[in-house]
Amino acid sequence: MSRSRKQLGTADDVETSFYDAIARADIEALMSLWADEEDIVCIHPGAARLVGHGAIRASWEAIFERGGVRIRPMKLHTAHNLMTVTHNIVEEVHRPESELQDIHILATNVYMKTPYGWRIVLHHASIAPGKVSADQASATLH
Amino acid sequence: MSRSRKQLGTADDVETSFYDAIARADIEALMSLWADEEDIVCIHPGAARLVGHGAIRASWEAIFERGGVRIRPMKLHTAHNLMTVTHNIVEEVHRPESELQDIHILATNVYMKTPYGWRIVLHHASIAPGKVSADQASATLH
Repeated sequence: MSRSRKQLGTADDVETSFYDAIARADIEALMSLWADEEDIVCIHPGAARLVGHGAIRASWEAIFERGGVRIRPMKLHTAHNLMTVTHNIVEEVHRPESELQDIHILATNVYMKTPYGWRIVLHHASIAPGKVSADQASATLH
Repeated sequence: MSRSRKQLGTADDVETSFYDAIARADIEALMSLWADEEDIVCIHPGAARLVGHGAIRASWEAIFERGGVRIRPMKLHTAHNLMTVTHNIVEEVHRPESELQDIHILATNVYMKTPYGWRIVLHHASIAPGKVSADQASATLH
């Protein structure tokens, strides 16, 4: 099983491998990073919820038909303990067209420690208005 | 500190209290459910990311100016271990107007065990197209 082949050392390693697989449109590498659970969840920006390996795999295969997507995770906020790491990031998406001029993508990635090492249990991406500028907390407080 | 007063037994108790506080527009009850961390994250549907107690509190105070919002968490998918519970749900929102006819709200809620019991570290809500019908996984697979 490719799923159990690689022991990824940290949740950060999984996140790096996740966005690397998306950039290379490598569906096998991408799917090997998810936990071996029926209840894994993937939400693409503006789309319905997908649950389970079959639905999640099909969605990425459809995306990869147009090639890989270069995404840089930025502006990380994290909550973590020994067995779980939650990342909330801004996804800086590189596209040839300027599709993302007035919006940005926010993503929550949750990683849990499994017998095979750290794995993704949830990826929830969504669209936020405006460009990313200063920290939204400061913008609201001051 | 109201934050440490109540020992909530499970993450499910926190979720119940969270939506109850939103229904009653009770800002103190709502804010007491969050972890005492700077990096807590709240994303309202279609809005920018908020980080930290100050920004999150201000956003809910603005929402509560129009009164409470009755939300029923539905169609739960969960990933959990001893110290963390991740819920992904559909938020069934009850509004007088029929604002939500062609969309629905998806939310990820992450709870972690703290010295004060279970607390929210992240709430990420977003808009998905269409009505909620059958499980999206089945819809994609069959």
